[in-house]
Amino acid sequence: MISTKMKEMVEQSAALSAMFTEGKRLAEIYGAENVYDFGIGNPNVPAPETVRSAAMDLLQHTDVLQLHSYTDSSGIPAVRKAIADNLNRRFGKAYTEQNLIMTVGAAGGLNVICKTLLDAGEEILTFAPYFGEYDNYAKNVGAVLRAVPPNPPDFLPDLNRMAEMITQRTKVVLINSPNNPTGVIYDAETIAKLADVLEQKEKEFGTSIYLISDEPYRELAYDGRQVPDVTTYYHNAIVVYSYSKSLSLPGDRIGYLLIPSTVDAFEDVIMGAGIANRVLGFVNAPALQQMIVARCCEEVTDVAFYNGNRDLLYQALREYGYECAKPQGAFYLFVRALEEDDVAFCERAKQYRLLLTPGSAFGCKGYVRISYCVARKTIEQALPSFLALAESYQKK
Amino acid sequence: MISTKMKEMVEQSAALSAMFTEGKRLAEIYGAENVYDFGIGNPNVPAPETVRSAAMDLLQHTDVLQLHSYTDSSGIPAVRKAIADNLNRRFGKAYTEQNLIMTVGAAGGLNVICKTLLDAGEEILTFAPYFGEYDNYAKNVGAVLRAVPPNPPDFLPDLNRMAEMITQRTKVVLINSPNNPTGVIYDAETIAKLADVLEQKEKEFGTSIYLISDEPYRELAYDGRQVPDVTTYYHNAIVVYSYSKSLSLPGDRIGYLLIPSTVDAFEDVIMGAGIANRVLGFVNAPALQQMIVARCCEEVTDVAFYNGNRDLLYQALREYGYECAKPQGAFYLFVRALEEDDVAFCERAKQYRLLLTPGSAFGCKGYVRISYCVARKTIEQALPSFLALAESYQKK
Repeated sequence: MISTKMKEMVEQSAALSAMFTEGKRLAEIYGAENVYDFGIGNPNVPAPETVRSAAMDLLQHTDVLQLHSYTDSSGIPAVRKAIADNLNRRFGKAYTEQNLIMTVGAAGGLNVICKTLLDAGEEILTFAPYFGEYDNYAKNVGAVLRAVPPNPPDFLPDLNRMAEMITQRTKVVLINSPNNPTGVIYDAETIAKLADVLEQKEKEFGTSIYLISDEPYRELAYDGRQVPDVTTYYHNAIVVYSYSKSLSLPGDRIGYLLIPSTVDAFEDVIMGAGIANRVLGFVNAPALQQMIVARCCEEVTDVAFYNGNRDLLYQALREYGYECAKPQGAFYLFVRALEEDDVAFCERAKQYRLLLTPGSAFGCKGYVRISYCVARKTIEQALPSFLALAESYQKK
Repeated sequence: MISTKMKEMVEQSAALSAMFTEGKRLAEIYGAENVYDFGIGNPNVPAPETVRSAAMDLLQHTDVLQLHSYTDSSGIPAVRKAIADNLNRRFGKAYTEQNLIMTVGAAGGLNVICKTLLDAGEEILTFAPYFGEYDNYAKNVGAVLRAVPPNPPDFLPDLNRMAEMITQRTKVVLINSPNNPTGVIYDAETIAKLADVLEQKEKEFGTSIYLISDEPYRELAYDGRQVPDVTTYYHNAIVVYSYSKSLSLPGDRIGYLLIPSTVDAFEDVIMGAGIANRVLGFVNAPALQQMIVARCCEEVTDVAFYNGNRDLLYQALREYGYECAKPQGAFYLFVRALEEDDVAFCERAKQYRLLLTPGSAFGCKGYVRISYCVARKTIEQALPSFLALAESYQKK
């Protein structure tokens, strides 16, 4: 009785939620503290105290009508100005409020920019492994998502393969760095080469190819690594940003689209994105959260905490015999499963009270994602389970 | 370079924003206080003080990780429970948290339920005049919106015409009572008859026809009128609600879907709606706002204030010779334009510094919408302009 497409999604989702139900069942048997959930990306670093003080101050000192009013569908101009100023200071740019659209997180931003740019049947090219929701965002506008195959062991984008896969219909190339699920950061050289290929292809086909850079993990970079600013390298680059990880505000649903004035059809893109925000039902990014991030955009999360988690888990897993590239950013480890079937491997992990996500959910079989944005204690207590899981394969 | 559909919307929108630019131009010449903006639905009644105290208390006393965490895509179970309890007390129902999905306002809720129910090519039937965004929401999922023609002067739904227009492909009938733009409330007799027709048609075609009741104005009813609970009259009714008007929180983007257990394929609908919330990019309704409305859902806005605006403006307009049904709810007057072309009439109104919305934006030419959710003073000061506008037609 529901939509055919949604019926399929309900059925797929039932399988996925069976995994979480199993997690709950294990928690009931062994106690929640003895089940180690590495499945989700909910930050364990609290939001900075300035978020609370900004919120309290806004609630106490802003005119109540203004505080709760509809905002422009693009967001509050003063908020966009504050964020533009922050970006200008950090990246030596000259953005204004005209270059920013406030969105309901990165998920909202991605849907808005897809709605703005893509007609049904046009193509989005991305790189496996990739965040599974990209498939749904493409389908929402009738576009086709195609994935360049995974490029292990370093998982940098395979640019030759990308070049082969770009067609007349490729309107968007979608990247995510620091990457979910691999933790790879695309370095400046990679971005520069990627930009070269896109420029060549734009000429070859006489088309515009927009590079959409999904950057919720931008601030989570380790070992002093820099995340290159894509807009410096390519004229048609658009950034999708979220404060879900950088300020630990995932439930607040607040982020932005950065649309540089250099992009083709800039006026149409920026106006279209405002309209898309409205017609997709977001209407505006939540007003209070807009005002909060304008005041807190200079804040940084506790990267050292995630770095500690990364080192602890990475070293232990290597010691136990797991194969894995050391993540450069984000808060995920992408580990080779100890058998070919990553779903079966995740099933076996549950026997050791470990909840992991199969790589096939990211278009990359044979791997699993371990989300380490958890309490330090969770990792410490889970290590014997990871060891026992590895040993269970050696015995066999 | 942007999507073809979006390019069309950008062009249409340019015409609309020309109207607002004109408003700004007038404000610069005459001063903002001398331009009377009756164009928008931004409540002028402040949010209740309990909204602020609930927000402050949550910020001070809730664990910071919990406060900002992702919520279930359906919303926080305790929040849904609190709202279900509120509905049960008011309407003598037995809802549980299983019947509610928290959404990014009513606009989010409408997009979520359309995504859940409708395949491309299926039909939504609504009644003109109707909120123009319905067209966009239908297009978002490739569905077709058809409008039963307006039924002046009382603007109650023409049920005979509706019956003729329902086809095998009609999956949704969408109503909005109290109505934007007419202010009409569909009484119990009308809802009962409407339900009868839908039940007959379900039998005739062997289909499920869902009645979606868009109710952001439910609490704004005057003269002691009751807004019937549609779920009491029809097994396949789903309610879309928002706190934008009832608590004056339009910028906060918070509302819900009420999906009674009686609807066909209930389990699929409720699960599908949770998935739709996620894949459309809402992910979850903003977490803080969910917690706020759970604590404030017993609050009511200052209906007496809107009632005062209604009486003042309605009586003056009638006296000046305008034709208009007295609104029973919401905060709009739907007035017959003084010439055939409602857009031309709005243009002339601007000469008197009055900003109105043409009825053609609601699928009903020859009328204009006057939004009276403004300061009392705005109405008082605008009355001479309304009089002069009417007189300008008498002279002619």
